Amino acid sequence: MVSVMQAQQTGRRILIERVGAASALRVRQAEAEVVGHGEVAIAVSHSGVNFADVQMRLGLYPDAPPRPFVPGYEVSGTIEAVGTGVTGFKVGDKVVAGTFFGGYASRVVIPAYQVFPLPSHLDLAEGAALPVNYFTAWLALHEMGRVRAGDRVLIECASGGVGTLAIQMARHAGAEVVGLTTTPAKKAYIEGLGAQAFTREEFAANRALKGFDFILNASGGKALGEQMGRLDLTGRMVCIGVNAIVRDGRRDWVQLAKLLLAAPRFPLLELFDRNVGVFGLNALHVLADETWVRRLTAGLGDIGRMGLRPHVGKVFAASEVAEAHAFLETKRATGKVLLAW
Amino acid sequence: MVSVMQAQQTGRRILIERVGAASALRVRQAEAEVVGHGEVAIAVSHSGVNFADVQMRLGLYPDAPPRPFVPGYEVSGTIEAVGTGVTGFKVGDKVVAGTFFGGYASRVVIPAYQVFPLPSHLDLAEGAALPVNYFTAWLALHEMGRVRAGDRVLIECASGGVGTLAIQMARHAGAEVVGLTTTPAKKAYIEGLGAQAFTREEFAANRALKGFDFILNASGGKALGEQMGRLDLTGRMVCIGVNAIVRDGRRDWVQLAKLLLAAPRFPLLELFDRNVGVFGLNALHVLADETWVRRLTAGLGDIGRMGLRPHVGKVFAASEVAEAHAFLETKRATGKVLLAW
Repeated sequence: MVSVMQAQQTGRRILIERVGAASALRVRQAEAEVVGHGEVAIAVSHSGVNFADVQMRLGLYPDAPPRPFVPGYEVSGTIEAVGTGVTGFKVGDKVVAGTFFGGYASRVVIPAYQVFPLPSHLDLAEGAALPVNYFTAWLALHEMGRVRAGDRVLIECASGGVGTLAIQMARHAGAEVVGLTTTPAKKAYIEGLGAQAFTREEFAANRALKGFDFILNASGGKALGEQMGRLDLTGRMVCIGVNAIVRDGRRDWVQLAKLLLAAPRFPLLELFDRNVGVFGLNALHVLADETWVRRLTAGLGDIGRMGLRPHVGKVFAASEVAEAHAFLETKRATGKVLLAW
Repeated sequence: MVSVMQAQQTGRRILIERVGAASALRVRQAEAEVVGHGEVAIAVSHSGVNFADVQMRLGLYPDAPPRPFVPGYEVSGTIEAVGTGVTGFKVGDKVVAGTFFGGYASRVVIPAYQVFPLPSHLDLAEGAALPVNYFTAWLALHEMGRVRAGDRVLIECASGGVGTLAIQMARHAGAEVVGLTTTPAKKAYIEGLGAQAFTREEFAANRALKGFDFILNASGGKALGEQMGRLDLTGRMVCIGVNAIVRDGRRDWVQLAKLLLAAPRFPLLELFDRNVGVFGLNALHVLADETWVRRLTAGLGDIGRMGLRPHVGKVFAASEVAEAHAFLETKRATGKVLLAW
């Protein structure tokens, strides 16, 4: 009996042990973790893989914990145990959670305030694709931008994980949305979400596409100057994704130098000339703040009401984590990359 | 009879004829202007004097019309004639109007969409103190910042023309407000408007005053770095008033050089580090856009509902316009400076 209990409570996890290639990632046996007051244990179904995990593996992410550590910001799964003081969850509930490190594991023990019920219209894979992209889109549109009915909204990476959710959220708020993509074939998908779709080339050539109240810039400020001219008076741009510094799994020093020296430094007077605003959003940093995690998690009922559906790209077995990282590094990935346990 | 009509229709106006000292400003007789389709004529009671007028007189304002021209952005008065196609106004109505040049005159003829009824709780002097400061505060708080209930708001120049209205608007929106002043004696006035009041010194020394969702920076970005650290995650700062370049009526080249070279250039990465946004607001530029003037004027019913009361500083006879400019240049002025016709 005791051995069965222990077998249930132990599990597997993936550690970043040293800076290096994806092939160094290993699945290891994990010790049983005690479920404390206010915590729940989740038997993980899927773990989300984020570009920040790749940056951590390469030693390029300043906020990473000291090595060795288990990366991973998000999981879906089933409640396996409930600690004292927890209300609202019972064993067997299907849930989604932001883990803010530790998500690459077959079992996680985390505070209940980070957990929310799997929306009934989604499966567990879709659930694991939600937290980081949903919170990023929410922070950009509703906390920073405060998008409202009648706004004209431009989503730069409209077929990506954040962009897909951002379009749906903005439409739900009553905004008109224009979405951009590099690939003509993805226009139909974007239009299916309720946005007008253009390739970047079509957009660049069409100067009539302007007067936006909100722009979601996904290139870390790279197209800043050009996009600023597309804002309406009093409009705002939220920049996400300063991630141009990894290419094919290696640190790209040229890109890094360019990033630090060139584009993303701009005169305040340009904001006055244009009567606009610019935000920088590093969502993973916001998600390190307990107050914000509580506030955002409490607001997640909106997902069901909006019928939001995330875009799952590719699911790898947890043992194929090296392949999952390699796939993400090529930047050919569209939609969320997941590990299945 | 004809001569009486002409006497009513002609009037006086003040022109900027050349770059120079305030003493060069002169009141001159004006030709009668025809009231066209969609226009009204206003017998002006008071004209608002703005710092931008001083900058224009000194040749420091790029958006100024070619000289000679009549400056002035705002008037109050009585409808004297109504053009064809105008509904909603009749002769004798007390009104307020944004004039966007031409306001330093005893009679103005302007499109009716720039005119709104004098709010019933205000006198004509208070009415003339409204347009520029009201629109500036509205653009900062409600169009750019989109302040909402529960926000923590910081107003830097809380006893100034814009700050006074901004506090009242933010309180009306359900925000908590902190207001700053240089003068301890003004704290009671600020508190009377519903804000917590601190001197700049008290604020600088009190690091607990942080976590603001909205900051109205009135020093043209000068305190940008310090104030950015006071923003909550996802917070926004709106900078107004790049006007540090005139001192005692002369161009201050040292200040101008400092402004262009030093403070107001900042790295985008700082926005990412802090998860905040910065806007630049040049309200007079927005008020050159007809669409925005129509939209903002249409929203002016809110003034009565909110019971907004502007802060009239000092009223000069129109013939004392040189004294009015000189007074504004000393920067000792608090509240609106007006000319009475």
